[in-house]
Amino acid sequence: MAGGTGGAKLACGLAQILPRDCLTVIANTGDDFFRMKLRICPDIDSLIYRLAGIQNRKTGWGIADDTFSCLEQLERLGAETWFRLGDKDLAMHLVRQQLLSGGQNLTDVTTQLGHSLGVHTRLLPMCDEYSPTYLETDCGRLHMQEYFVRESCRPTVRKILFNTRDNAVVPLAVMEALGKADGVIIGPSNPFISIAPILQVPGLREQIEEPGIPVTAISPIVAGRALKGPTARMMSQLGYAPTVLGVADFYANLIQRIVIDSRDAEYEKELRARGLEVVVMETVMRSEPAERRVASKLVESLCKPS
Amino acid sequence: MAGGTGGAKLACGLAQILPRDCLTVIANTGDDFFRMKLRICPDIDSLIYRLAGIQNRKTGWGIADDTFSCLEQLERLGAETWFRLGDKDLAMHLVRQQLLSGGQNLTDVTTQLGHSLGVHTRLLPMCDEYSPTYLETDCGRLHMQEYFVRESCRPTVRKILFNTRDNAVVPLAVMEALGKADGVIIGPSNPFISIAPILQVPGLREQIEEPGIPVTAISPIVAGRALKGPTARMMSQLGYAPTVLGVADFYANLIQRIVIDSRDAEYEKELRARGLEVVVMETVMRSEPAERRVASKLVESLCKPS
Repeated sequence: MAGGTGGAKLACGLAQILPRDCLTVIANTGDDFFRMKLRICPDIDSLIYRLAGIQNRKTGWGIADDTFSCLEQLERLGAETWFRLGDKDLAMHLVRQQLLSGGQNLTDVTTQLGHSLGVHTRLLPMCDEYSPTYLETDCGRLHMQEYFVRESCRPTVRKILFNTRDNAVVPLAVMEALGKADGVIIGPSNPFISIAPILQVPGLREQIEEPGIPVTAISPIVAGRALKGPTARMMSQLGYAPTVLGVADFYANLIQRIVIDSRDAEYEKELRARGLEVVVMETVMRSEPAERRVASKLVESLCKPS
Repeated sequence: MAGGTGGAKLACGLAQILPRDCLTVIANTGDDFFRMKLRICPDIDSLIYRLAGIQNRKTGWGIADDTFSCLEQLERLGAETWFRLGDKDLAMHLVRQQLLSGGQNLTDVTTQLGHSLGVHTRLLPMCDEYSPTYLETDCGRLHMQEYFVRESCRPTVRKILFNTRDNAVVPLAVMEALGKADGVIIGPSNPFISIAPILQVPGLREQIEEPGIPVTAISPIVAGRALKGPTARMMSQLGYAPTVLGVADFYANLIQRIVIDSRDAEYEKELRARGLEVVVMETVMRSEPAERRVASKLVESLCKPS
């Protein structure tokens, strides 16, 4: 299960070391929204761009060497331009919207877009329905992208509102992947806005818990800080300790194992006391080799009893 | 009345020499079509880009110094790319589609888009409805853009099918402009595919003929050739002489006056014998000063009896 940054990096590492049939990435689509009447799937796009090796590694979003001519012209035409749509990136949204408008579901469209760019890792949206995540903040109710991009995560988050609960269904492809899974890995993504929307899709959690598929979470918090984004701050705002303990609390009753960074080794004992298996390793992925290294160590640790 | 090339050049010349309130440009929208679910209005776009001074004068379409990053990526994603959408150009279509989807009509959207780019000439689509022109050809029935762009005007045209007749209504703004008009100028655009669709909008021709507004056509044919595009060839294919006489035949019973190029002075007598007033002048517009010059001479000739 992955969002668009930490989880996406881990997914790339895993895609490189595992046989194609052994990995399914379930992507958060709670960040989805519409720009210029086009459905944008930021996490799916980040995953595809990363897996295709064309992502902009400097910014962490979009396509490398993209241009912004269209956006500049949109600005002249008076359109809102806080969401930085690159020209190449835009092609993805145009084709996606065309396919969706033609009646295909997001699962199939995602597969097709991935294949077009040479991505053959099985990448599935958490649901086919449009189920955006909203945040109650001290600046009112905001869509995830308004909070994240337009407001640069400045507002204080009071509550997270998932649309998945009422509106979404686990896609058949996700059901099948979970049905065959030997384990579930929760990537080092923001638990609240990247992973929780996936877990909120009705029936998905049961599909993991009932057969008792072992679940491993990789902490997105390292030494009390998020490597990128507002995770640590959001944890505090929502009543969790901004540490690996908070992460463990958040995933309580779901995970059996947690992977924490060496810098957090001090928490190992307390986590074990809560009944969790703990893997301590270097988890920071600042380069492609690091992604492969973390993925390899993770897979290794999952294959032997801790 | 104007299409996107000759008529658009004349419109630009007129816009520069006439007070703003004295000119209304009625644009052909029979060339309109959809790409990636976006409404494209090639003639309106050409008119706006020309009037805004940002058109690509080298190609005759699109915006100067545009990039094609999105199109290249669309190609990678397997989309049809024979219609060369530039990145800046795309912004126009995105905003237009957004406004249309929001419920605005094409007349208002066109005004808004023009204003955004500093165009204050009154520019009106011939109708608000989507009424594409199709051509019966030896390669089957083709949309105007398929014939013009994808097939590079190679097929032989047998018949032109206008959708306006059944489907369109003269917009109120066009009715008002004609109601106040001292004269109608038919620009040097393709009579069949740029001007006829306008004249086919039910009620429009009556709005000119009943009050007897004088109509002047500028021949798009000079010395037996079209300056750009397939006009001359299309005239032959559809049974008209590919000369100013053919143009006069096409506009018979509508126009009282025809403007022909000095190179066609030999036809003056025959045209007068048909009861037409004839203005002979340089009509070729290869530069902005030439557009102004032609517009000035035209206005001058309209203000004195021939």
